[in-house]
Amino acid sequence: MSAFPLSDLTSELRVPAGPIDLSAIDTNAAPGFDGDKKDGEAALLDLGPDLADLQERLFADGKAGGRRTILLVLQGMDTSGKGGTLRSTVGLVDPQGVRITSFKAPTPEERAHDFLWRITKALPPVGLIGVFDRSHYEDVLIARVRELAPPKEIERRYGAINAWEAELAAEGTTVIKCMLHISAAEQKERLLARLDDDTKHWKYNPGDVDERELWPAYQEAYEIAIERTNTDVAPWHVIPADKKWYRNLAIGTLLHDALSAFDLGWPKADFDVAHERQRLTDEKPLG
Amino acid sequence: MSAFPLSDLTSELRVPAGPIDLSAIDTNAAPGFDGDKKDGEAALLDLGPDLADLQERLFADGKAGGRRTILLVLQGMDTSGKGGTLRSTVGLVDPQGVRITSFKAPTPEERAHDFLWRITKALPPVGLIGVFDRSHYEDVLIARVRELAPPKEIERRYGAINAWEAELAAEGTTVIKCMLHISAAEQKERLLARLDDDTKHWKYNPGDVDERELWPAYQEAYEIAIERTNTDVAPWHVIPADKKWYRNLAIGTLLHDALSAFDLGWPKADFDVAHERQRLTDEKPLG
Repeated sequence: MSAFPLSDLTSELRVPAGPIDLSAIDTNAAPGFDGDKKDGEAALLDLGPDLADLQERLFADGKAGGRRTILLVLQGMDTSGKGGTLRSTVGLVDPQGVRITSFKAPTPEERAHDFLWRITKALPPVGLIGVFDRSHYEDVLIARVRELAPPKEIERRYGAINAWEAELAAEGTTVIKCMLHISAAEQKERLLARLDDDTKHWKYNPGDVDERELWPAYQEAYEIAIERTNTDVAPWHVIPADKKWYRNLAIGTLLHDALSAFDLGWPKADFDVAHERQRLTDEKPLG
Repeated sequence: MSAFPLSDLTSELRVPAGPIDLSAIDTNAAPGFDGDKKDGEAALLDLGPDLADLQERLFADGKAGGRRTILLVLQGMDTSGKGGTLRSTVGLVDPQGVRITSFKAPTPEERAHDFLWRITKALPPVGLIGVFDRSHYEDVLIARVRELAPPKEIERRYGAINAWEAELAAEGTTVIKCMLHISAAEQKERLLARLDDDTKHWKYNPGDVDERELWPAYQEAYEIAIERTNTDVAPWHVIPADKKWYRNLAIGTLLHDALSAFDLGWPKADFDVAHERQRLTDEKPLG
């Protein structure tokens, strides 16, 4: 177990009901954690074995007929660290137990269906941790800012998302929604750092700067989306993400707490253990 | 870089052309590696950063229009360590860059198609490392031993596999085929260990012992499959796997060498770097 009590962190990050003002949330803070970068990195490493154990229990539960899954939804502006979170935090557990989906602009086939069609197809099988790098929320974020759908359709989607997530929750999925919250200044620094490093040019897309120029519209779209879809069964968390170590620790802790809440033991044998041992110890020479 | 020269390892594990006698290959050996368990575990950890760097280059290449992928095929008797390899070795790289598929007994829908149908669907997208935990080889292994298909159909499959793998290779995929080779005595020990540990019962399946009783038939089916499908473009490796640390190091090294052979630099920017820097430094206040 971690030397730092992390229980405060999850509740600190949970967005309360009602309107949300993102500009009032310090992107450089470390709410619920009383330590520096070194402490935070150590605390995440400390979480690793626990996370791996809890993930394996979930996997075992799925094999034994359980219906539980985790769905971790990562949203945030470009460079907010969705990829880094996957590497540093999701990378702490067995890759067999994780199903990662990165959503890009929808294909023509995907656009021909309801916006939740491709999302539903990407849901994790029982026993797995599903991670969405971007998600159905793009359909009320970029779709709203760029007017990719009529206002009435955008409006409809908030309710459709709530109904869809409620159904998931009822089926045994714990939905953890996270907005990785960086400042515009931090994004600028990260984009410039990509430009300054030849080995990072492939990560840079001039289109990201076009989106950046719409920063206030995106912040507003996030505020609306978070307020409208911040339900008890699928709550939102805003993660201050200027500090990469805090972002990683925060997501790791949310994952840990969600897995712990399943309170899973190990599946009981559905066979006669003594008989199986006998079969092996008494076996005739093979062949 | 590793303190141990590992280059010998890949060539030692490569199965030479012609008939193969698995009983002549020591399952407890560590060919090509002159060190003990501690050295082997350290050598694998040393490989980690290199592996992660090479995997990221492959991923970047895929984003930039490259066609390369890796397909790592893991085969072996139950308890031979396919899952452990995934955790310990594949877990060293970014989970976003890996696509793992575990093949079970085919579903009725899958059985209605050619045996390669479901395999083709599971191929990794460009830029990714695909890992098959079991594979199309089950269709000439258990299918042969259990007579799940007529002999003529089994016979046809070796050629079909070679043609299919040759096409993959021509499209830019490096196919790495590994048989994790354990002794029957080691398997017995591992099965008994699962029975002795309540937290491992979920991994135990009485059916595994039914298959174990057909050990010689399986070894023969492996020998035939390996000989018939051991091509230059998709060669087989037999990995002595009684020592878990050696198994992990061996697969890590094969993966490392395959990625190195792509000799990938970082993609060049397809935009004007100076102009993009200017856009960011000269930008008007956002909003």
